[in-house]
Amino acid sequence: MDNFLLVAIEEAKLGLEEGGIPIGSVLVRSGSIIGRGHNRRVQHGDPMAHAEIECLRDAGRVGNYSDTVLYSTLMPCHLCAGAVVQFGIKSVIVGESVTFGGAVDFMLDNGISVKDMKDAECIAMMERYIKEHPEIWNEDIGS
Amino acid sequence: MDNFLLVAIEEAKLGLEEGGIPIGSVLVRSGSIIGRGHNRRVQHGDPMAHAEIECLRDAGRVGNYSDTVLYSTLMPCHLCAGAVVQFGIKSVIVGESVTFGGAVDFMLDNGISVKDMKDAECIAMMERYIKEHPEIWNEDIGS
Repeated sequence: MDNFLLVAIEEAKLGLEEGGIPIGSVLVRSGSIIGRGHNRRVQHGDPMAHAEIECLRDAGRVGNYSDTVLYSTLMPCHLCAGAVVQFGIKSVIVGESVTFGGAVDFMLDNGISVKDMKDAECIAMMERYIKEHPEIWNEDIGS
Repeated sequence: MDNFLLVAIEEAKLGLEEGGIPIGSVLVRSGSIIGRGHNRRVQHGDPMAHAEIECLRDAGRVGNYSDTVLYSTLMPCHLCAGAVVQFGIKSVIVGESVTFGGAVDFMLDNGISVKDMKDAECIAMMERYIKEHPEIWNEDIGS
């Protein structure tokens, strides 16, 4: 497995331990992690604190994003895909898109490379969370 | 002029006083402001702290957004438009789109109502900022 996806999964598990939604994200440049984060809607009462947004916040003002790769345990939604498109991230690698299809078409239409690892652990983690906390999950994706 | 746009302009001016980019945003439900914010990229070193994101963060977990209206002094970029689309905000009112065209087509394609007030004060405020700080502005929109 891709080691950076493993770190994203660690982030997701941190979120779960905190009582949050288990989605993690990592930003990579030249083989090094320059940002990481996990969903904190529940922990911070912040609907914008999606994993990818927290990760990009953690990375800070990195300047040009064209040589960065964004990892997420789950296919990004329109909020997070919007960040990818706006800041010119060219490559997104996700753990899975079975439990949430996200904004994959929006990213592909904007020339982003999207690779789906179809990772069994990521799928199982979200399936379990959605089953146990459907109302929080639906709130997180605005549905 | 729309009073809520005036509040968004107040937010933009607060940001400018703090040394930041003068963009402000307000979230309205049933004629009342339920969130407000301004761009804090410079102040917080946070590239995700666009005005609309800060506004939605300030509003907190408001549940359903379908009866809310998002005001911004400037046409939202893809990040902020992504939030609008993902969370089901149906109506966006902007001060201007002269200095930045933003993601208006993306919002229109997703059925969002977008009203451009073509406000002279909003235009002048951004024109001046972009002229004086082109590098910060370009960084803010990832270009």
